[in-house]
Amino acid sequence: MVKIEQDILGKNDQYAAANRRHFAERAIFALNLVSSPGSGKTSLLTRTLHDLSGEIPLAVIEGDQETSQDAERIRATGAPAIQINTGKGCHLDAHMVGHAVESLAPASGSVLFIENVGNLVCPAAFDLGEAHKVAILSVTEGEDKPIKYPDMFYAADLLLLNKIDLLPYLQFDVERCIDFARRVNPQVEVMRISATSGEGMSQWYEWIRSAREQRHA
Amino acid sequence: MVKIEQDILGKNDQYAAANRRHFAERAIFALNLVSSPGSGKTSLLTRTLHDLSGEIPLAVIEGDQETSQDAERIRATGAPAIQINTGKGCHLDAHMVGHAVESLAPASGSVLFIENVGNLVCPAAFDLGEAHKVAILSVTEGEDKPIKYPDMFYAADLLLLNKIDLLPYLQFDVERCIDFARRVNPQVEVMRISATSGEGMSQWYEWIRSAREQRHA
Repeated sequence: MVKIEQDILGKNDQYAAANRRHFAERAIFALNLVSSPGSGKTSLLTRTLHDLSGEIPLAVIEGDQETSQDAERIRATGAPAIQINTGKGCHLDAHMVGHAVESLAPASGSVLFIENVGNLVCPAAFDLGEAHKVAILSVTEGEDKPIKYPDMFYAADLLLLNKIDLLPYLQFDVERCIDFARRVNPQVEVMRISATSGEGMSQWYEWIRSAREQRHA
Repeated sequence: MVKIEQDILGKNDQYAAANRRHFAERAIFALNLVSSPGSGKTSLLTRTLHDLSGEIPLAVIEGDQETSQDAERIRATGAPAIQINTGKGCHLDAHMVGHAVESLAPASGSVLFIENVGNLVCPAAFDLGEAHKVAILSVTEGEDKPIKYPDMFYAADLLLLNKIDLLPYLQFDVERCIDFARRVNPQVEVMRISATSGEGMSQWYEWIRSAREQRHA
């Protein structure tokens, strides 16, 4: 099985490299958003699109096993969006994303958000050609997730701790969670946010602006 | 790729059939608990073990990518438990479970809880030889999960809607969620519970008792 897995990943890496070239040529800043199902990725995204529209060109690729309702929620913000349904598949791969980018044709200089299938395991292994993986962890999920699913937290450059408006009703030790994340990935940046209340969102927007400028300086 | 997937699933089904025979011979009632990461499976399990101990022999197989802290939490209840670390793997398979059952050697007449890796996609495809799959969905995850991850909700015989103590702080439409689940799986039984407050837990215990009796009548 190891040989087969290597072949699949090798092929994926070729497509990812092609995507990365395409993004570089057009100064497209691609972020791969990864998390469990229900961490609030789509709410985070709709609020972000709303708040950054007019300032930066934006585009979205939505991944789900089934349904296109997320893409519809996204399009309601005015941002161009395309839905990939993976069917039995548990993650996006670079080939799917390449085709989606062809159809979507994001404007030069865009921020392209790629919302992966909700899954803390499989998407960690598949490079899509993004500039960064951004992991979203809801505080309702428990602070031990970084050490139980280390591959994902190791692969992410930024960790958004979402739904912090619910902290008063939960037993969730934020410092302990951050400590677990740093054990797996000492470099990971961490922000505490609530896509519902808006707390911490400006810090996330600042990160997008500065990481984008750094990428295409 | 389709051929390879069929081979893997075909092999898994042979191991699952062997597990099922083993369980039948010893009147072991096996439940495969499936959910996203952070739905509260382990808290549900520790409370269940505590409340049913003395009444029924209990045993647990814990699946996680990494760490053995869940098995330690379980053993603290007095129930025998064994941890399977899947490493890069995103689900338990019947072969792993067969080996774990050999080491664990649950008593005849036991209820064997198999806590799968937190993942709403991949575990749906792998029969472990269980009597039933039980899906746990936290109300913090959003009501659309059954239609976005239909394979899992189709495969489950029982859906436990967990963390209902948090409903006052969330926008979560319970009836809509149940409606989505029944669209995917008209036969699925649904219970509203909170492993933290204890609400609804007696209904879940009643289900275990009666499904177990039915299985080994």
